[in-house]
Amino acid sequence: MNSKILFENIKKKKSFLCIGLDTDINKIPQFLLNYQDPIFEFNKQIIDATHDLCVAYKPNTAFYEQYGNKGWLSLEKTVNYIKTKYQNIFLIADAKRGDIGNTSDMYAKAFFENMNFDAITVAPYMGEDSVKPFLLYKDKWAILLALTSNKSAQDFQFDDSNTNLYEKVISKSKKWGNEDNLMYVVGATKAEMFKDIRKLIPNHFLLVPGVGAQGGSLSEVTKYGMNNKCGLLVNSSRSIIYADNTPDFAIYSRKKASEIKTEMEKLLLKYESNPK
Amino acid sequence: MNSKILFENIKKKKSFLCIGLDTDINKIPQFLLNYQDPIFEFNKQIIDATHDLCVAYKPNTAFYEQYGNKGWLSLEKTVNYIKTKYQNIFLIADAKRGDIGNTSDMYAKAFFENMNFDAITVAPYMGEDSVKPFLLYKDKWAILLALTSNKSAQDFQFDDSNTNLYEKVISKSKKWGNEDNLMYVVGATKAEMFKDIRKLIPNHFLLVPGVGAQGGSLSEVTKYGMNNKCGLLVNSSRSIIYADNTPDFAIYSRKKASEIKTEMEKLLLKYESNPK
Repeated sequence: MNSKILFENIKKKKSFLCIGLDTDINKIPQFLLNYQDPIFEFNKQIIDATHDLCVAYKPNTAFYEQYGNKGWLSLEKTVNYIKTKYQNIFLIADAKRGDIGNTSDMYAKAFFENMNFDAITVAPYMGEDSVKPFLLYKDKWAILLALTSNKSAQDFQFDDSNTNLYEKVISKSKKWGNEDNLMYVVGATKAEMFKDIRKLIPNHFLLVPGVGAQGGSLSEVTKYGMNNKCGLLVNSSRSIIYADNTPDFAIYSRKKASEIKTEMEKLLLKYESNPK
Repeated sequence: MNSKILFENIKKKKSFLCIGLDTDINKIPQFLLNYQDPIFEFNKQIIDATHDLCVAYKPNTAFYEQYGNKGWLSLEKTVNYIKTKYQNIFLIADAKRGDIGNTSDMYAKAFFENMNFDAITVAPYMGEDSVKPFLLYKDKWAILLALTSNKSAQDFQFDDSNTNLYEKVISKSKKWGNEDNLMYVVGATKAEMFKDIRKLIPNHFLLVPGVGAQGGSLSEVTKYGMNNKCGLLVNSSRSIIYADNTPDFAIYSRKKASEIKTEMEKLLLKYESNPK
């Protein structure tokens, strides 16, 4: 999927919501444990209940890997289910991979060929040759960690006396790809920083975690981060998928996703009537 | 495994060799494709032929993930095989993981509980809370990327005008753990840099990739990097495991591993007779 189609989906759905499928067997409704594959069954019901309210899903691979090859199988089934049934969904592997060139090739194969993800999150520490293999696939994306929303992002991403590392990562890496194959993770707990980031990359899409359970504000993020092609995918995981733990859980997830979508619709309209 | 036992194994085997199990179905001897699980069969034969010459094995997870849940199963079988048959082997998951705290918890569970790895490589970009979960397991290790051996390590790990990022990573992170749960990846193509790194962490173990196919020199690495508990695990992958592609491949792998082990034995003796 290229940025044009992604933006068309956003306009059509009036939503730039990404739902994080961080599926934990200890948190899903307990009646699902009677199913042969409870994780897939949970995902399936969440997806069926929310697909028209979001433009993207983002399974975090750690949640699946913790169950070994069975977890990996649940992930593969989830990817197949989405890609077969809802073709205009942008599918992100939140995997935070990154290794030397010939190894990143294999991660690209794992997530772009064996599984039909549209994008994968990548850690930038090893530099260009660790990112490039992901950029060679047509209509696929690398989403580079720039500014993360966790407390210890402070440890290395910032620099008191020099250019911040996250700014270096953006400035340098934007030359490796283009606005159709490169996005950035930008943590929502620091909304005012979007201003400076938008000076560096006015047109790139940003993947924003941390709205909802992690405490970011949607209106702040759009105020500083939105551009005239929206330019934002805002993720929410726990607050949507664990909205309820009864057999009706998917109805409550839909309700929560719908609330966020309604807010997003207003923010999109607001931007449209008053673009920057 | 703690550092004391690791050093005892090194003395007993007269080797600080780590063999990288970067098993690629396109590179293994073709007769193995007749086996039900060619990747596991290849690993098994390599392991049986080399276990007394090395102290560690290091499967790179990308090579297994590229085959989806089947590849993950081959990895699990390899881990079980080593841990059941050769208990004094130090087993490293070269996975380069790292995410926010509650997600790194799950990666730790995946590699330390579901699979019985002793260590996992971790990317430091997200800081302390992404590393800490791995340090909570007794006798398990996080191996942090510090200075990698790829060309584009230059992009972010170095800094012309300020402290290098890899030095910042070492200085800050060494306080998060201790010499029994924290190692560092230090690329061998820059052997003289071991000198400065040893000023920061005289006693920590270093995992050194890049000897062999990636071109580092073993004698240079030990000259600057060895300490009085050895303090080094030097990895070789392709030059050992792909030494030959006939049905006798494991014999040739043993021969190659044996050559490296003999060189290591001399270097250990040299250090012993003339410690720094």
